[in-house]
Amino acid sequence: MISNDSYTDLLIIGAGPAGLMAACWASQYAMTTRLIDQKSERTKAGHADGINSRTMEILDSFGVADIVMRQAVGNMDASYWGVDEKTGNIRRIKCQPSQPQELSRFDQMLLNQGAVEQILIDYLDSKGRVHVERGRKAEDLELPGRSGRNGDDEFPVQVRVVSTNDEDGQCDNAEVIHARYVIACDGARSWTSAQLKVDSDVWKTESTWGVMDIVPDTDFPDIRRACAIQSGDGGSMMVVPRENNLVRFYLQMNGGEGRSPNGPEESEGSLEDLIDMAEKALRPYKLTYKHCDWWSLYPIGRRLIKQYRSDRIFFAGDAAHTHSPKGGQGMNISMQDSYNLVWKIAAVITGSVDPAILETYQLERRPEAEQLMEFDTRLVYAYEEGSMEDGSEDGVEAVREKYAGFMAGVAVTYPPSMLIGKRESNTAVARNLQLGKRLPSSLVVDQEDGCVVHLATKLNSNGCWKLLIFPGDLHSPGVWDRLSVFAKEFSGRFNNHLTSQSKKNTQPWETFLIHSSPRSSFGKSQLLGAFHHFGTELGWDHAKTFADDPSYDGDTGQAYQQYGIDKQRGGLIVCRPDQHVGWVGDIEDVEGLERYFSRFLIKTERT
Amino acid sequence: MISNDSYTDLLIIGAGPAGLMAACWASQYAMTTRLIDQKSERTKAGHADGINSRTMEILDSFGVADIVMRQAVGNMDASYWGVDEKTGNIRRIKCQPSQPQELSRFDQMLLNQGAVEQILIDYLDSKGRVHVERGRKAEDLELPGRSGRNGDDEFPVQVRVVSTNDEDGQCDNAEVIHARYVIACDGARSWTSAQLKVDSDVWKTESTWGVMDIVPDTDFPDIRRACAIQSGDGGSMMVVPRENNLVRFYLQMNGGEGRSPNGPEESEGSLEDLIDMAEKALRPYKLTYKHCDWWSLYPIGRRLIKQYRSDRIFFAGDAAHTHSPKGGQGMNISMQDSYNLVWKIAAVITGSVDPAILETYQLERRPEAEQLMEFDTRLVYAYEEGSMEDGSEDGVEAVREKYAGFMAGVAVTYPPSMLIGKRESNTAVARNLQLGKRLPSSLVVDQEDGCVVHLATKLNSNGCWKLLIFPGDLHSPGVWDRLSVFAKEFSGRFNNHLTSQSKKNTQPWETFLIHSSPRSSFGKSQLLGAFHHFGTELGWDHAKTFADDPSYDGDTGQAYQQYGIDKQRGGLIVCRPDQHVGWVGDIEDVEGLERYFSRFLIKTERT
Repeated sequence: MISNDSYTDLLIIGAGPAGLMAACWASQYAMTTRLIDQKSERTKAGHADGINSRTMEILDSFGVADIVMRQAVGNMDASYWGVDEKTGNIRRIKCQPSQPQELSRFDQMLLNQGAVEQILIDYLDSKGRVHVERGRKAEDLELPGRSGRNGDDEFPVQVRVVSTNDEDGQCDNAEVIHARYVIACDGARSWTSAQLKVDSDVWKTESTWGVMDIVPDTDFPDIRRACAIQSGDGGSMMVVPRENNLVRFYLQMNGGEGRSPNGPEESEGSLEDLIDMAEKALRPYKLTYKHCDWWSLYPIGRRLIKQYRSDRIFFAGDAAHTHSPKGGQGMNISMQDSYNLVWKIAAVITGSVDPAILETYQLERRPEAEQLMEFDTRLVYAYEEGSMEDGSEDGVEAVREKYAGFMAGVAVTYPPSMLIGKRESNTAVARNLQLGKRLPSSLVVDQEDGCVVHLATKLNSNGCWKLLIFPGDLHSPGVWDRLSVFAKEFSGRFNNHLTSQSKKNTQPWETFLIHSSPRSSFGKSQLLGAFHHFGTELGWDHAKTFADDPSYDGDTGQAYQQYGIDKQRGGLIVCRPDQHVGWVGDIEDVEGLERYFSRFLIKTERT
Repeated sequence: MISNDSYTDLLIIGAGPAGLMAACWASQYAMTTRLIDQKSERTKAGHADGINSRTMEILDSFGVADIVMRQAVGNMDASYWGVDEKTGNIRRIKCQPSQPQELSRFDQMLLNQGAVEQILIDYLDSKGRVHVERGRKAEDLELPGRSGRNGDDEFPVQVRVVSTNDEDGQCDNAEVIHARYVIACDGARSWTSAQLKVDSDVWKTESTWGVMDIVPDTDFPDIRRACAIQSGDGGSMMVVPRENNLVRFYLQMNGGEGRSPNGPEESEGSLEDLIDMAEKALRPYKLTYKHCDWWSLYPIGRRLIKQYRSDRIFFAGDAAHTHSPKGGQGMNISMQDSYNLVWKIAAVITGSVDPAILETYQLERRPEAEQLMEFDTRLVYAYEEGSMEDGSEDGVEAVREKYAGFMAGVAVTYPPSMLIGKRESNTAVARNLQLGKRLPSSLVVDQEDGCVVHLATKLNSNGCWKLLIFPGDLHSPGVWDRLSVFAKEFSGRFNNHLTSQSKKNTQPWETFLIHSSPRSSFGKSQLLGAFHHFGTELGWDHAKTFADDPSYDGDTGQAYQQYGIDKQRGGLIVCRPDQHVGWVGDIEDVEGLERYFSRFLIKTERT
């Protein structure tokens, strides 16, 4: 048996949403990445279909949100249906917005998982650095120390990989991949976690649900709205509008008239059973179907891995946590796991930051998964046992309202760490921002060309920390001088001390200036030159100075107010490469800013 | 010499913007299309760079406007500079929006022609029906009758095509393409028009301009704004911000100190001369450059072909008209030519409409080109001779203001014809619309899922006529009944008489309902069923009923007002496949509607 040996900085096992997102992130960095998947093709139909607002923001940071929007449908209305006691039929209790508008510039979108995977695969192809290697299965894993190998091996994880379609038992194409780091995105029955014997907390329940994606033929008036329906004897049901005239139905299989209390065995259910149940639950409305894209039965169980990391190996997505699909969260939390992780690993691999930051992965993501378990438990209970009536405290509406920010993915707030400053230090500077939370976007006007842009689009996923300088109104007394002092201090401290990347003529941060003066009221030439990073070939960077000023269409001029920044005092905001606010401080506090970066950026000596 | 014979419904000669747009349109239809170009690759740099609002709308109708927006820069500010008499330096006279916001939902964008071509090529590849055949040159052309062939030949145009890279004179790959129709998009020195000896009107001038795309190094404060600069001795100059930190400069070569009055010979100019002139024109500001992407010198001349059509051959783009690039119009008018033409040819080829509609091509597009000649003449005069001072009547600002709608591409109004109804008949129904003009978009709310959409996105380039039904407020007395009568009448007259495509289960029109009642105030089920076209596999078409009602974000509810439609009276609007309004009438006037379609749709007998 011949094995080839190969070496890679990062190995990603599993090309579902978590693994593909990991690869998209890794494509931004000058390092080698391999992505293997034992299946021969991507997800074809069904499975996850909810893309929450935060995931849309992340996809937009890679420039692919508009592709999703062209294919997906928006989830705008949430409609609640209960039983009319007199007739026994269902009746609409209320219909309202699915989520508060102010949570994000993106609505929740609905699109099958395979289409999302394809968008990420196309992105990888366009970047050309990482390709999905399909039909490649990991079958042996060795960690440093296990085999008595040298502990300072640069590529300490060894993974033996074979082709899954190699049915004659010959393994000519077996390969041992030596990796610096590995991310296991290999799903609910993670091979990697089994190899490493990593324990999980498991919560079993006795409920089983059915799910189907069909093109319905119905007179139910809310068929294109997200509906929570409790039909009494007909059981509980969720309706979710989808792309291409599809509608997803979730159906409670246990309880209800004529069904076994623990729900059917998987072998007992059929598509016709599901259609029949849905038709009963919708009475007095009619339901048949024209086409079925996918259907399945699933018992509701929850599992959360105890450790997100084992040495150089990290778990993300379903490999770390599983739960019911009811809140539309699975694909999101999975992609957000690897979105949180890969920039940290990449910064370590490319040599610019202290490997200690890798500890923040579990610190930041496991509490998010714990909250997911709690939310999922409450939501399933609300569907199965709660009341749909207005004002009910254990009903679906109450749970959705309480967890609205969580469901949109924008409430997640990472705790203080070497990457997130302490809360109390700066609440006065940006009163409406919270350290550890992603920076909400605000519309601003480009100082030089007058284009209106979402600030978030400037915080794209390029691997840089983003320093946002809010000097205030440059016409106010002292503001200009204070900014001059800042520019001088910043350029002195930062260009001389912390630029480990300066040898490559790149910096680990980008700076943006957002002033609150009228855009037309001054010429930028003299002082603002400090913020124009002049590259030899690329010219003035025009895209980095903005005015919080009404634009021609009148939609701008609210950024300072939105962030709670005083126009006299100004302030500094540091966003991590994943847009989460890491540090906030006064413009005078360049020392504090340097202290923040010193915690994790590796200093190089002056030569 | 062996020639292969092949047959195609449509042959497009030339794969510049006009030819590629023609191919994108042709990709929508079940017909065969060939696209040949004698060059071996697309435009690499420079050339046209302005994409006006109407072109953006057209690109959006193919789903590719967002790709342009990711690559291009917006042209937001128009800045005017003149000479300060005291110092002799230039000074800013004013800066204002480049065009009125209300003209279109898209701003003018700036991007090099090659990038636009690539976006269209990628679109063709994604559709898979038409591919660019490069290095293929037409070298002989025969029309019916010329060679004594049978006049009722189904493929009457014969074009002999050879490979341009076949340098040894052997023509193994020569081919005779027999086509039903040909579109000549072969540029300013059109081979096709020379073959056919089609005459042009020609206006020569004595002015020569230089153009360059550079990454400048300058302290000129408006370097990211579109500037018109008159620097006295330094001559006239235009500055246009571009993608990737590029800036385009247009420089007047004749006149001015130390230059020959008629401008240099092409051989005399150099990039260094242009840089030198630009630096002089910008004084007191400094200018050097880091990178030059492209530069050229061009004499200003205008040419307009007398006939847009010769038998089965049509001319589009530069093959029909040439002019100066100053207004940023060239690429737009060219693409708009073929956007006007191809749906007509395709409808004739696929058999649903009377070939007489092809006469409207010249009728509609030549006046547009005539206006282009007039605008270009005035604009060049304004740059060279007019005054930049405020209030000047022959200055650049005055010309731009007068032609704002023309420059944005949204003012074009096609005259009455078999495709455009007479103006006087319906001004009362939609007071703010003009027959022959493209329908401006309005934000509406999807009745069923609550998504906010631009109505224009529903009028996409799929080849259908679009019937927009504005019933008014469905709660007003009589409105519901009137709509019922309309639905019955329409379905009776149209389904029985005019559906030549019904054999393929497709119709030449799509219907949309836009009511002005509160979205939540009624269930759509009963009557609106009339407007839900139920396909066997695809299900209810949910995307065709809209409310002109405030949405969750408050941006909607203005459509009736914008179009000038009375909420009691309602109205009908027919848009052609290219979004131009063809007919407007009362809801009661189904007979008038039928009369409109009867003018050009070919009737099939009931079987």
